[in-house]
Amino acid sequence: MAVTLIVNPGSSSKKYALYSDKVLLLSAYVEKAQAGGYIFCASVRGVESLPGISLTASLYHESLQTFIDIAIEKKLIGDSSDVATVALRIVAPGSYFQRHRMVDADFVRELEAIIGTAPLHIPHVISELQTIRRLLPKTKTLAISDSAFHRTMPDMARQFSIPAETQGKYDLYRFGYHGLSVASVVRRLHAVTGEMPKRAIVCHIGSGVSVTALRSGLSIDTTMGYAPGSGLMLGTRAGDLDSGALLALMQARNLKPLDAQAFLQTQGGLRAIASEADLRLILDRRIKGDKEAILAVDTFVYQIQKAIGSYVVALGGVDQIVFTATASERSPILRALLCAPLEAIGAVLDADKNEVCLGRDGVISTFSSPVKIVVVKADEAGEILALAEQVGVE
Amino acid sequence: MAVTLIVNPGSSSKKYALYSDKVLLLSAYVEKAQAGGYIFCASVRGVESLPGISLTASLYHESLQTFIDIAIEKKLIGDSSDVATVALRIVAPGSYFQRHRMVDADFVRELEAIIGTAPLHIPHVISELQTIRRLLPKTKTLAISDSAFHRTMPDMARQFSIPAETQGKYDLYRFGYHGLSVASVVRRLHAVTGEMPKRAIVCHIGSGVSVTALRSGLSIDTTMGYAPGSGLMLGTRAGDLDSGALLALMQARNLKPLDAQAFLQTQGGLRAIASEADLRLILDRRIKGDKEAILAVDTFVYQIQKAIGSYVVALGGVDQIVFTATASERSPILRALLCAPLEAIGAVLDADKNEVCLGRDGVISTFSSPVKIVVVKADEAGEILALAEQVGVE
Repeated sequence: MAVTLIVNPGSSSKKYALYSDKVLLLSAYVEKAQAGGYIFCASVRGVESLPGISLTASLYHESLQTFIDIAIEKKLIGDSSDVATVALRIVAPGSYFQRHRMVDADFVRELEAIIGTAPLHIPHVISELQTIRRLLPKTKTLAISDSAFHRTMPDMARQFSIPAETQGKYDLYRFGYHGLSVASVVRRLHAVTGEMPKRAIVCHIGSGVSVTALRSGLSIDTTMGYAPGSGLMLGTRAGDLDSGALLALMQARNLKPLDAQAFLQTQGGLRAIASEADLRLILDRRIKGDKEAILAVDTFVYQIQKAIGSYVVALGGVDQIVFTATASERSPILRALLCAPLEAIGAVLDADKNEVCLGRDGVISTFSSPVKIVVVKADEAGEILALAEQVGVE
Repeated sequence: MAVTLIVNPGSSSKKYALYSDKVLLLSAYVEKAQAGGYIFCASVRGVESLPGISLTASLYHESLQTFIDIAIEKKLIGDSSDVATVALRIVAPGSYFQRHRMVDADFVRELEAIIGTAPLHIPHVISELQTIRRLLPKTKTLAISDSAFHRTMPDMARQFSIPAETQGKYDLYRFGYHGLSVASVVRRLHAVTGEMPKRAIVCHIGSGVSVTALRSGLSIDTTMGYAPGSGLMLGTRAGDLDSGALLALMQARNLKPLDAQAFLQTQGGLRAIASEADLRLILDRRIKGDKEAILAVDTFVYQIQKAIGSYVVALGGVDQIVFTATASERSPILRALLCAPLEAIGAVLDADKNEVCLGRDGVISTFSSPVKIVVVKADEAGEILALAEQVGVE
């Protein structure tokens, strides 16, 4: 029994999954509870949901212990030494992190060196790695890169318009993220639509937001650049700010780069406009005519639409527009707003199909729409599992 | 005789024009000479070109004296007191500068306060204003805003995704530039194409570069945001950099905001990739297979194309794509590169029409192209003149 543990630490939540070969044994997610602290929800073999467990904030970093305890208690594994491989999703800027790697001391040092560039993500990863080392001291751990998928981007999309030696010396490139999500979409697209589009645009709209242009399944451009906070606005992240405005703000407020980084990551995005970051709640307020919510949704939707338009030209046309990740998988309202002006590029939404496609795969464009609009559930865990097997045998 | 002097100080060149009512008496431009220093070229009534005059760099700020001397010598005016109005083009970030205004001491103080935000532009404007005050002490001077045209942009395009109070307190908005150029295109579009498009995209490609989306002739979005160095890459300007990469660079190099601003404005853009900023020379190198030139042109063209695509969706389709300003008015090669993937959005270039359209207005799309592609010569001076008359009578 080759058991693989998948660990996917996000900025405000994390996911675990335990596989025996390709069979899911146990999965869990940990997220902030409304009452404070965190809630840990596990499910055996994807069917038997266990009662939620409350975790205090200080136990958040120890949630892997809870997960392993349940796996043993449910007799899915004998003990922790049955776990042959840990595969950890890595979201971090740097050429070093744009490859899947074995985790070793070197790897941890590289991570520690760049905490400031992704302050919402990297500290969680480091603390999760410490927990893994303590609980599974003999298990090999693989770091599965969330940006490796974007290594196919051509220089004109990967590079900035600053001198090559500056980019090289400080390793400043547009690495892109959500690669595992987009790769899982590519892997499943044929099963959903019966074809593999030459030109596709994937909109990942979850707690992170990005749009990726794919030519024959390979990334040619994506909106997230150097760090995962870049590109389009998200819940609390401002996305890319006009350089001039950012520098004027830093000058006026005497902000250091790390202060500015923290400001953009935590004080921007939907929260900056609508005083909260949860898109579902903001969509509800919008329907009631709340002005801040209307502006927040308008801005959010507008940025994604512009990215789609830019990639239509980048690809010289588009065959499929794909929505993936929670918000776009589950919200027909959001998809309807996003698609409204896309008729201009030949993508015509079918309102009925859109309404009934909730949390599952499906084609939601009209029969005669020249461009297909498709919903595909992201499967990061499945992608990590597949990659862990490849990396493991390298 | 109501004589108006138009002064248009750019970052590395400037233009003067003297009008009596709407009749051009004298025009001149001053630009860097290849041999060093500057060259001053004047033309009487738009027809009689005078021999070029060399100016040392130290005399650049005094070139208005040369201009007025010629006007008197050619008996176009009796003396400098005949100039009733000076209309000065203003390129500066700030809500204050997004309106046309009478220049007074207050105006100069507002300008001095923001030198750091547009270090290539504002010092030239201030020194030009000093020269105007000295040579034409009794003449009223109007500041004609290059961003006023973009005041019609909706909040979702004008605002950043950062808290409203931060934007308000530090006056951080996407003001947009090239407004005078785009307004002159709007004014002339009907004369060139016989129609006024509901949805148009204007690509201003000169020493500055921007793309603007127009609904019924009004700006709804533009690529330049807070300061004129923002948006797309230009000759020496990096355009918008990924915030995360910019902050990582500042952190690594210990750059202050004004240092970073200067770096982005002078070390980026075409020069960063191809070691020189002149697009004409880079296009020549590209044809010879020079790799740096190929990447520079590819990147430059790609950024403009993506902006066009984003505005097609923003406008819900497009009726006309317009090229204006020197580089796009004069270079069929550049236009052909830019238009290659635009067939995907219904804009089909006519290769023959494109070849012969050099420095003049014209439609360059095929007869059957759903979207017209048009070249319209920008007329900033004409626009400034028209606006100066309006502001003057307010």
